[in-house]
Amino acid sequence: MIVSFIQASARAEPAARTPLHAMLTTLLLAAVSILAAAASTHQPHPFDPLSPAELTAVRDAVLASPLVPAGPLTFHYVGLDEPDKPDVLSYAYGNPTSSSRSALPRRAFVVARAGGQSHELRVDVTDAAAPAVLAHAVHRGAGFPTLTLDEQFAAVALPPAHPPFVESVRRRGVDMADVLCAVFPVGWFGDLPAKERRVVKLLCFVAGATANFYARPLEGVTLVVDLDRMAIVEYKDRVVLPVPKAEGTDYRAGKAGPPYAGRAPAPGTVVQPDGRGFDIDGHFVRWATWEFHVGFDVRAGTVISLASIHDAEAGARRRVLYRGFVSEVFVPYMDPAEEWYYRTFLDAGEYGLGLWAFPLQPGADCPANAAYLDGYYAGQDGKPVENKNMICVFERYAGDVAWRHTEAGFPDRLITEVRPDVSLVVRMVVSCGNYDYVLDWEFKTSGSIKFTVSLTGLLEVKGTAYTHADQITEDAHGTLVAENTLAVYHDHYVTYHLDLDVDGTNNSFVKNTVATKRNVAGTPRRSYWTVRRDVAETEADAQVDVNTAPADLLVVNPNKRTRMGNEVGYRVIPGGATAASVLDDDDYPQRRASYCKKQVRVTPYRKAEKWAPGLYADQSTGDDGLAAWSERNRAVRNEDIVLWYTVGIHHIPYQDDFPVMPTVSGGFELRPANFFERNPLLTTRPPGLDQPPLVNCSCTGDSR
Amino acid sequence: MIVSFIQASARAEPAARTPLHAMLTTLLLAAVSILAAAASTHQPHPFDPLSPAELTAVRDAVLASPLVPAGPLTFHYVGLDEPDKPDVLSYAYGNPTSSSRSALPRRAFVVARAGGQSHELRVDVTDAAAPAVLAHAVHRGAGFPTLTLDEQFAAVALPPAHPPFVESVRRRGVDMADVLCAVFPVGWFGDLPAKERRVVKLLCFVAGATANFYARPLEGVTLVVDLDRMAIVEYKDRVVLPVPKAEGTDYRAGKAGPPYAGRAPAPGTVVQPDGRGFDIDGHFVRWATWEFHVGFDVRAGTVISLASIHDAEAGARRRVLYRGFVSEVFVPYMDPAEEWYYRTFLDAGEYGLGLWAFPLQPGADCPANAAYLDGYYAGQDGKPVENKNMICVFERYAGDVAWRHTEAGFPDRLITEVRPDVSLVVRMVVSCGNYDYVLDWEFKTSGSIKFTVSLTGLLEVKGTAYTHADQITEDAHGTLVAENTLAVYHDHYVTYHLDLDVDGTNNSFVKNTVATKRNVAGTPRRSYWTVRRDVAETEADAQVDVNTAPADLLVVNPNKRTRMGNEVGYRVIPGGATAASVLDDDDYPQRRASYCKKQVRVTPYRKAEKWAPGLYADQSTGDDGLAAWSERNRAVRNEDIVLWYTVGIHHIPYQDDFPVMPTVSGGFELRPANFFERNPLLTTRPPGLDQPPLVNCSCTGDSR
Repeated sequence: MIVSFIQASARAEPAARTPLHAMLTTLLLAAVSILAAAASTHQPHPFDPLSPAELTAVRDAVLASPLVPAGPLTFHYVGLDEPDKPDVLSYAYGNPTSSSRSALPRRAFVVARAGGQSHELRVDVTDAAAPAVLAHAVHRGAGFPTLTLDEQFAAVALPPAHPPFVESVRRRGVDMADVLCAVFPVGWFGDLPAKERRVVKLLCFVAGATANFYARPLEGVTLVVDLDRMAIVEYKDRVVLPVPKAEGTDYRAGKAGPPYAGRAPAPGTVVQPDGRGFDIDGHFVRWATWEFHVGFDVRAGTVISLASIHDAEAGARRRVLYRGFVSEVFVPYMDPAEEWYYRTFLDAGEYGLGLWAFPLQPGADCPANAAYLDGYYAGQDGKPVENKNMICVFERYAGDVAWRHTEAGFPDRLITEVRPDVSLVVRMVVSCGNYDYVLDWEFKTSGSIKFTVSLTGLLEVKGTAYTHADQITEDAHGTLVAENTLAVYHDHYVTYHLDLDVDGTNNSFVKNTVATKRNVAGTPRRSYWTVRRDVAETEADAQVDVNTAPADLLVVNPNKRTRMGNEVGYRVIPGGATAASVLDDDDYPQRRASYCKKQVRVTPYRKAEKWAPGLYADQSTGDDGLAAWSERNRAVRNEDIVLWYTVGIHHIPYQDDFPVMPTVSGGFELRPANFFERNPLLTTRPPGLDQPPLVNCSCTGDSR
Repeated sequence: MIVSFIQASARAEPAARTPLHAMLTTLLLAAVSILAAAASTHQPHPFDPLSPAELTAVRDAVLASPLVPAGPLTFHYVGLDEPDKPDVLSYAYGNPTSSSRSALPRRAFVVARAGGQSHELRVDVTDAAAPAVLAHAVHRGAGFPTLTLDEQFAAVALPPAHPPFVESVRRRGVDMADVLCAVFPVGWFGDLPAKERRVVKLLCFVAGATANFYARPLEGVTLVVDLDRMAIVEYKDRVVLPVPKAEGTDYRAGKAGPPYAGRAPAPGTVVQPDGRGFDIDGHFVRWATWEFHVGFDVRAGTVISLASIHDAEAGARRRVLYRGFVSEVFVPYMDPAEEWYYRTFLDAGEYGLGLWAFPLQPGADCPANAAYLDGYYAGQDGKPVENKNMICVFERYAGDVAWRHTEAGFPDRLITEVRPDVSLVVRMVVSCGNYDYVLDWEFKTSGSIKFTVSLTGLLEVKGTAYTHADQITEDAHGTLVAENTLAVYHDHYVTYHLDLDVDGTNNSFVKNTVATKRNVAGTPRRSYWTVRRDVAETEADAQVDVNTAPADLLVVNPNKRTRMGNEVGYRVIPGGATAASVLDDDDYPQRRASYCKKQVRVTPYRKAEKWAPGLYADQSTGDDGLAAWSERNRAVRNEDIVLWYTVGIHHIPYQDDFPVMPTVSGGFELRPANFFERNPLLTTRPPGLDQPPLVNCSCTGDSR
């Protein structure tokens, strides 16, 4: 949610008013022109995000189109409309000399608001000098697109001019200059699907002596703003509660200590005497046996595509992942009170993960040896906005072991072979209001990809009269973390969309269940377990609660087998954070994010099925999202399938999480499972081994 | 299991015969004397492991004792008999000037075999020049002590002189010079409890052109050795199967590649310009706000004691953990065949984790900035054996974030505060036969302790006639990972004994269950979850399968509350690897390790209750272990309690795990939960902050 100081002087036009916004949109047209010129000398990869020049061309085409109403138009989503999968596969893995490697069309998908409607447009910008709108539709269903920054700035500027709010602030003895408000989506609670009334709630906070205004809610006050009219349409001052004190809430250096405890850990830096071990060529990263494309989407954040791995024994590059990204982050709070019941955030769909990814701090967010990628998105006015240092890429030397063995079995020698682990991390940090998500893709020389979600940032707290736990006699829906401060119970569900193409396009989903055999004859043992192999025929078969029956879950290619005859595959290994939603199936937030009841789901690939809660997440009703799509129970066996994995955390806060939370992490690993004939690390050069020129390899990969 | 080349020349006395053994016992008496002299100038901490001089004194006292029979005596366990807990607490946390800080008695607990019996002795070595046996008992129950290295060497030397074995080897066309055998405990399968017949099985392998003899079993041949008689007492050659080929099994550098794939990751090293940030004073480590004692036990490996943390806001050192270590590693295989059914290893109790911890490789097992600790244990003859570089300690710079927040809510500035994470790792690697376990304790500035078990090493494989998966028509109990090579299904259960003393000795175990509320009135929401708090009264209440109801599991101190009135505590966060045993309750291996059905258990502290399967693990019957103790269902509320946590993995092998396995990791975190008034990182010096002298603090901690 965006917030802004409300100041007496702050009465100018919203976009020009806020220095933050100015900072975010400082990309001058001149700079855009330079970048566009630079970009034009380099033929874009089909998955490259839209360049500033392309974003500008999209804007020109949309604003010039007779298909949308004249008058105010706001851009809510502008993203790459990727070419069809067969074309991309042919481009990426086809014969490099054939015509398939020629440039594919460059197209954008746009959601814009105009005339009180959500317009969807497809715009061709292959020739950025002559962009063309290819298709146009008006969204007739429930829900609204992602909120823009500008409209949030405009909304939070309204309250100081609203006399009842001025009175509420006065009544609490707070200085209006210290007040900030933030935008909260209203969710959906069983009304007729909201197709026209695009509203948000505003909740307000007090900064004052602390940067941590989230710790100081102006509890009890709710404003409702109609975004299309940009006007306050409802106001409620339900209850007056003490504003928590500022003391002890600031987290900035110099504001929190001394006294310090103990001594500081020693400073340490990773040094790479030979430089980095990876190349970034445009958006393509090549490291060890891996290569993949790092893209960016304003809603999803980092997008990894066309990840493949060179297999020395096969003498070939083999496909692993077509395209993967975070599809949604669902964060429902667990307090039914008036100011809290609707706090059931869909951070990607309502706010935009890429929109809220701020510049990474070199040497702190990422180690000193990291490289950085910038991103560009379209502002509300359609103009390109630069997002500096949005993604970092670095080799990770964590002191771990890739593999080892000590063999004490030979009488004449002790054999110890150890390979220290080095991995490659692609990181983005999303600071969507109070919370910060560190989102890591970690590529390993073993062929694994580890996905880690690390939560940190500020707790969302509720003002209360309580100053001691002994005063609490009924369910407080949270933990008293400071005087007058309840940290409310909530969940986090981070859902990944992973279009795995394991050694080819068509894959199956296999559940290898550990099944106990009892009363076996001919052995002193009374039991053992074996593996029951179930191949999912349809989507319903592939919905798995990973906390129930123990099983290895695999995505295999039934058309490719190892020399030993095993189907090649990857398996999913949960790494903590396996919570599933426990809300009632009929509860409204649950209906909007009903996919969160199972950590694992599989769908047949459909280009349009990207966003777990549906394209229009704001005020969505759950009628057009992942769970709804799967109700058709489509075939998934030996099809082009997508794995959806949800990392889940039930968060009961504790005082140690306040005023800023030490990182807590969870995630999962995709690990080769009969993908290789044998451990690929044996044919991967260990770090420091002399670097001969890269081995040229034939590239395989069917392009069904 | 220990193995040895069987060579025609290998006929000498076992202990002298094997260079490995010689290597392990090269500590000359002269060297011992020097070390003993050095040690005597330094008053040992009550938890310091027995020094070489103390081990020698123990040996002298036992051999001189009239309580044990004259004649051959073998030492199977010699470890610290730690002083009683109140005395240690008084020593560690009492008034530093009082008499409580004077040296506590130094005592050893010994299990020795003599006259066909297991003798338990307590030996006082406070004055190493005049050691005294304080107590003696003969074990009358089931089970036997840990196997010594020497008796395993002696056993594996027997087969070449056994004509039926010579014939079996000949029949398989194998050169005896290439054959090695290994010792496998027989388990217990419902016979009358074995109190006298101390036997093991020998299985044999073929090395030849590979170091990876485990990949080449001489399948079908089983020998049984009576260890006390040191004679082969049974022999079976049940079935002849092809010996898998050596090709593709070697993992040594230069044996596995080229061809290599891709390029090597870049070499990288952590550099600490100001040196290490921790001190090691004797066995005490002080780092950041932490201090703890690093000990060693030949059965458990690393033992961490008296871990406490300096709390700046409280102005006090606060206790967290009295003593913690790996109590057992249970590894049952899932093949009911004659040569496999009994493979249900208890690696700590049968083999000894410390005994099988070999020297860590600087720069590979641990990063360049690591410090190393040596260990000493008593050999079979009672003489001290040095274990060099057995434990490493290092600051870990993994590129992670300790906490961060970007605040975009202020219109005039973007606030980004990031603290990169540095943690302190204490690592041991146990190479217990084929598998390697990297066992990490990771201390964090947040107050967390993370426990990570990383599995690598060699799969235990079965010879088979199969050369392709299509030939398999019935349950093969494993995966065909190479021609004639089945990697058999199995589990790993690593059980930690953690005597937490959270801010004092008496603690309670709390289960904060996430409970759904439905049909709530007065809100548009139809459900939410809240927290149901259950305090365990007895042991039965505290046995938890972490995969069932979602809950936060805490150890709290009900006698200490935060300023807000919350009980101070730590919580357990599973980090993957949460498998529980699925064997039948009545199956024999399950009875011996029945504690593996629940990941979490709590017992009242009893000094003798250290070893989850009981003191005598070899051929144990489960009558005297963790589950049996808990059948008394003792009170655990507001008592001195011990948390037992089992990390579990069902391991279905894949080809990618062969011939050596890329590391797979799991574990758990102990994280402060209302232990601190607020995030302690705010009062912890970030790395690189100027280092003033250590703040002297008063030390608190009750010593009930």
